Amino acid sequence: MKKTSVRTRVLTGTVAVAALAAGVGAVSASAETTETPAAPAAVKADTQNKDLAQTTGLTIDAATRAAQAALDAATKAGQHVSVAVVDRDGVTRVLLKGDGAGPQAPESAERKAFTAVSWNAPTSELAKRLAQAPNLKDIPGTLFLAGGAPVQAKGAPVAGIGVAGAPSGDLDEQFAQAGVAALAK
Amino acid sequence: MKKTSVRTRVLTGTVAVAALAAGVGAVSASAETTETPAAPAAVKADTQNKDLAQTTGLTIDAATRAAQAALDAATKAGQHVSVAVVDRDGVTRVLLKGDGAGPQAPESAERKAFTAVSWNAPTSELAKRLAQAPNLKDIPGTLFLAGGAPVQAKGAPVAGIGVAGAPSGDLDEQFAQAGVAALAK
Amino acid sequence: MKKTSVRTRVLTGTVAVAALAAGVGAVSASAETTETPAAPAAVKADTQNKDLAQTTGLTIDAATRAAQAALDAATKAGQHVSVAVVDRDGVTRVLLKGDGAGPQAPESAERKAFTAVSWNAPTSELAKRLAQAPNLKDIPGTLFLAGGAPVQAKGAPVAGIGVAGAPSGDLDEQFAQAGVAALAK
Amino acid sequence: MKKTSVRTRVLTGTVAVAALAAGVGAVSASAETTETPAAPAAVKADTQNKDLAQTTGLTIDAATRAAQAALDAATKAGQHVSVAVVDRDGVTRVLLKGDGAGPQAPESAERKAFTAVSWNAPTSELAKRLAQAPNLKDIPGTLFLAGGAPVQAKGAPVAGIGVAGAPSGDLDEQFAQAGVAALAK
Amino acid sequence: MKKTSVRTRVLTGTVAVAALAAGVGAVSASAETTETPAAPAAVKADTQNKDLAQTTGLTIDAATRAAQAALDAATKAGQHVSVAVVDRDGVTRVLLKGDGAGPQAPESAERKAFTAVSWNAPTSELAKRLAQAPNLKDIPGTLFLAGGAPVQAKGAPVAGIGVAGAPSGDLDEQFAQAGVAALAK
Amino acid sequence: MKKTSVRTRVLTGTVAVAALAAGVGAVSASAETTETPAAPAAVKADTQNKDLAQTTGLTIDAATRAAQAALDAATKAGQHVSVAVVDRDGVTRVLLKGDGAGPQAPESAERKAFTAVSWNAPTSELAKRLAQAPNLKDIPGTLFLAGGAPVQAKGAPVAGIGVAGAPSGDLDEQFAQAGVAALAK
Amino acid sequence: MKKTSVRTRVLTGTVAVAALAAGVGAVSASAETTETPAAPAAVKADTQNKDLAQTTGLTIDAATRAAQAALDAATKAGQHVSVAVVDRDGVTRVLLKGDGAGPQAPESAERKAFTAVSWNAPTSELAKRLAQAPNLKDIPGTLFLAGGAPVQAKGAPVAGIGVAGAPSGDLDEQFAQAGVAALAK
Amino acid sequence: MKKTSVRTRVLTGTVAVAALAAGVGAVSASAETTETPAAPAAVKADTQNKDLAQTTGLTIDAATRAAQAALDAATKAGQHVSVAVVDRDGVTRVLLKGDGAGPQAPESAERKAFTAVSWNAPTSELAKRLAQAPNLKDIPGTLFLAGGAPVQAKGAPVAGIGVAGAPSGDLDEQFAQAGVAALAK
Repeated sequence: MKKTSVRTRVLTGTVAVAALAAGVGAVSASAETTETPAAPAAVKADTQNKDLAQTTGLTIDAATRAAQAALDAATKAGQHVSVAVVDRDGVTRVLLKGDGAGPQAPESAERKAFTAVSWNAPTSELAKRLAQAPNLKDIPGTLFLAGGAPVQAKGAPVAGIGVAGAPSGDLDEQFAQAGVAALAK
Repeated sequence: MKKTSVRTRVLTGTVAVAALAAGVGAVSASAETTETPAAPAAVKADTQNKDLAQTTGLTIDAATRAAQAALDAATKAGQHVSVAVVDRDGVTRVLLKGDGAGPQAPESAERKAFTAVSWNAPTSELAKRLAQAPNLKDIPGTLFLAGGAPVQAKGAPVAGIGVAGAPSGDLDEQFAQAGVAALAK
Repeated sequence: MKKTSVRTRVLTGTVAVAALAAGVGAVSASAETTETPAAPAAVKADTQNKDLAQTTGLTIDAATRAAQAALDAATKAGQHVSVAVVDRDGVTRVLLKGDGAGPQAPESAERKAFTAVSWNAPTSELAKRLAQAPNLKDIPGTLFLAGGAPVQAKGAPVAGIGVAGAPSGDLDEQFAQAGVAALAK
Repeated sequence: MKKTSVRTRVLTGTVAVAALAAGVGAVSASAETTETPAAPAAVKADTQNKDLAQTTGLTIDAATRAAQAALDAATKAGQHVSVAVVDRDGVTRVLLKGDGAGPQAPESAERKAFTAVSWNAPTSELAKRLAQAPNLKDIPGTLFLAGGAPVQAKGAPVAGIGVAGAPSGDLDEQFAQAGVAALAK
Repeated sequence: MKKTSVRTRVLTGTVAVAALAAGVGAVSASAETTETPAAPAAVKADTQNKDLAQTTGLTIDAATRAAQAALDAATKAGQHVSVAVVDRDGVTRVLLKGDGAGPQAPESAERKAFTAVSWNAPTSELAKRLAQAPNLKDIPGTLFLAGGAPVQAKGAPVAGIGVAGAPSGDLDEQFAQAGVAALAK
Repeated sequence: MKKTSVRTRVLTGTVAVAALAAGVGAVSASAETTETPAAPAAVKADTQNKDLAQTTGLTIDAATRAAQAALDAATKAGQHVSVAVVDRDGVTRVLLKGDGAGPQAPESAERKAFTAVSWNAPTSELAKRLAQAPNLKDIPGTLFLAGGAPVQAKGAPVAGIGVAGAPSGDLDEQFAQAGVAALAK
Repeated sequence: MKKTSVRTRVLTGTVAVAALAAGVGAVSASAETTETPAAPAAVKADTQNKDLAQTTGLTIDAATRAAQAALDAATKAGQHVSVAVVDRDGVTRVLLKGDGAGPQAPESAERKAFTAVSWNAPTSELAKRLAQAPNLKDIPGTLFLAGGAPVQAKGAPVAGIGVAGAPSGDLDEQFAQAGVAALAK
Repeated sequence: MKKTSVRTRVLTGTVAVAALAAGVGAVSASAETTETPAAPAAVKADTQNKDLAQTTGLTIDAATRAAQAALDAATKAGQHVSVAVVDRDGVTRVLLKGDGAGPQAPESAERKAFTAVSWNAPTSELAKRLAQAPNLKDIPGTLFLAGGAPVQAKGAPVAGIGVAGAPSGDLDEQFAQAGVAALAK
């Protein structure tokens, strides 16, 4: 796989939100048939062997740094949370159960991360889409609660960060975004 | 089991929708007691041994062709999806996880296919029936999101095709119907 | 355990419905605190050994007869269903997957039977109670769809019969009641 | 699907054992590469629509009769057992938990039936094959204990009958064979 | 871990309710971002080894006494229930399935206890919060039905008590609170 | 159901071992076909209604007393264990996770209790039977490690007590037997 | 597939076996501490963004072609099998349940493929290693039966192909290798 | 980490092995009844409230540092592994799936850590004990493969570290011990 002058950037979740704001509604499950432009995929054909494709993901160092940044943000705010980073296949790369986090937090964090990377959007946005497609939340492995943020490379989802345990999902998501932000540095 | 001049036809999902439109509402879980005519079953008694019955299903060649057609339709539309074909017993015959499809897609596709073959109707229709019988969606293995289409032989369900991963369930179902259509050729 | 002249009767579900109609609403999860009279339990202390108790249930012959009666009623009505009989512990005693029944039917039948015996009421009644206590349906193992009927002895639940697969839950429950009725003969 | 003069026979398990005895060893997992003749399959192409195939199975009446015969044989011998009949897809068609059968019996019966229909042989035979291929028993859903017997039509497996709960697996299998024998009448 | 003059008190659930009443709404999943003060955690750093932390929980004697008190309260009221006590990690310490309790009761009791200790609030309160954050109830392991009460030490959750099986969740919770009260003596 | 002069006794596990010692080997899965006498079942037909049967079990008071006695015996010996009491259906009636017991202990205790009640023998005896029937241990829900003891009434199994967490299974079983002994008083 | 001077080759399983033959024994779980050279990983750091890494996998077209080739080889040999292709994350990309394949086949095929890609070796080789490290087979998701083959790119595992259903594991693996071979063309 | 005169030490795994060597054999499941001295528990009664007890565990900072040290050791040795740190309740505190680690590695790592903390011994030692008590490995959640090491405080287990993915379990355990060692500094 050859990459030339294009700079691979990891967008922060904030930017992701903005980018997605325009496309909100495109995920509605049954109310429309407008063919929206396909989202870019983090899978590229191998130019030298047509049977192979490359999938972009985070290194474990980057994933750990992001998770730690999310946890630090929560700790700084006096909150007890769990943090998960999952890859594009939905597989957990990093899980941290913070001191004092409740027993429900780790799986919540993983599911928020899974949901964010599946739809390439923050779970706070995705939760709003349930108004149009309420049964989306019945898809196995998902959790439509604020606290999940996608990590993107060239607009494609390469990972998801999920946080759970704070008194509000918005707080959780703020910490998750702190994790995403740590990757852009 | 003797079959004479009647041509066994595999109806496309579109026809199936039309056929079912008349019967919509018949599935309501608790609101009515009208005895609707029984749907035809894909199980026939064996004329030579009363203990045996024949169940009709797709060959693996047909199931693979249908799945590939659904995936091709999605690819042509620039969408990254997973496709599943399940038989009348709800068992997966073919599963394809397309390039770039999200981690939530394969099980969603299987559940949509399972739901379509269970009720012999497209999941877009079935999702509407939840207005009358909301708890139908609590039945294990189901997913009431557009994207599933039944495959029928003489009106009886012989398989289900499910697609998941496009930005709307209607798109998913369009691809599933392309899979059904490939069987009618 | 002393039993005198009282005849142990297995009430049909229809009577059960009447008995429960008066108590409907008593199951609301959080809206009220009225202490309703406790339901009779099918567990009796052993008069000769205070450590032992007797639990009443159906014999396998009775359970099989009831299941067969429910299936026969469905077949007579031209419907393809599954039938389950569970005991007071929620354990399946009989499961019949009828010819042509869909893949979703067996587990649906078991869950309806489980739900009916857990609350000692037909699931059509229980589904109505969700209006007051919607989260009841989140209890593991349950299904709040018509089609389940309790079997009672002296008012206490000793088994549940569940039917699934007909185009309406009311039909399913009619067949389940036919199963209960077969025990009263 | 037209069947003419060939009589569809349901072989008893005893005959099946004999037929398989010659082929014992053919299932060894890794020790040999001799290409043994393929077993006949209970799936036939549909002569009028190349996309369809017919799978042979038992009617619910036959399956229930077989299960009842197995349970009766156990009761006559003073044993408390559970009986299961599964179809070629491994799906349970009939489950009977007899009076006094232990809590481990129903799932054991289902797994024995599943194993017998999967390999088209009695589980007492299959258990012996573990000497050569010990890891066969790690395949999900299986149980390599005597007590399971295949039901065959023209040599192909169309169902499995499993019994569990007697003090020895050989007794369990004797009852399972009584179930198979009830189909040959 | 050094503790001086502060008396470690186990608050009754009633007090907990009062304490939480002020904070109700703080759990809303997505509607607000106000940073509420963090709840106290039952995990303390070890003053002598910074790598270690102490988590406070109930002794098995205390947990058993609380469970028994809850069961006694139910029995006195003529109700058949199950009682569970879980620790701060969500692990069950005590489970009692009372005479005549339905098959759905034990897992309901465990989930109510799990939910109460996870959010440090009675489940009757938590159920109300679903009005603002309906998807909270999709978090694995939870059950948002009245009947669960937190056990607190210095305001932090150290255990949860759950009761299930009475005709109303409010009754269940009354019994759970009786369990909490037994710890304050 | 009438019981006259026969005294219902709860045998201690020690006696049970003796009684079973004579029958050891009867459980071999495939090596023999000797028809051993059937074990007595804790299910009795109801003399007044042929459709009903009575199953004998422990009261919750007795089950709790037994569990507590087992835990006390372990504590006295300085061991940290979990104790479980399950009924004849394999359902957990009491679970106690003692102070300092490892995370593997509760489920081990439940499985030992389940195994003991399923075969009506101490698990130390059952483990020996694996020499003849090694695949018995593949039956779901079982654990063939010393530490489980059956509770019997008139020779029939009415409950199982399991203990796990001590440095040897023999110690675990000694504590389980202390639980059984508490019922005979 | 044409490959010229570029060195990215997809090795056939046969070559893989040869390559691994030299290293056999290196996977023993506990018997040795010799630090063997690390296997090459199919994950490469991104030269332009140190936080990103590329993982190599098969395109869905290649995976489908390989699965079809394996199924064709089985059909040609008169065998009824299931075929699975999983990626380096163990996620199923393609599943085909062939006509007449038993109910145990699909999950067996997936587990063989999972095992082959996890250890980068054919499962026939891996099964031999159990002689030294018997507990390897207790790792969740694995199956140590012949029939799985790794797909490699530059020596690193990029996919696994599993086949199940033939009378011997060696036959299954022969078909899996036919699938791998289809990628080298 | 500075430790002065206080005796709370976190022993390295190497020391733990030595300490345990004397006690090896004490875990045999059924072969002996010698009452070995009880292991110290990481649960202490609260001197001021007899209902409360303190459980010692690692802080998230310490657990993360240990996991990172284990991963670094593996990376330095050129191995691709997953690392897990679980607490005394068996709950995962940290999970890291390293770059290039196989799909089987994360759950293997968690189970090794679970096993080590459950028996307070390295899994290489525990695997040897299977010679005497082979069924220990049937306990749910465990994995008896080298690669797990306990973390101790005053001799009691407070956490477990598990590593999986290297070509030998001994290598895995070497990395796990590096994680333990990082806590002693």
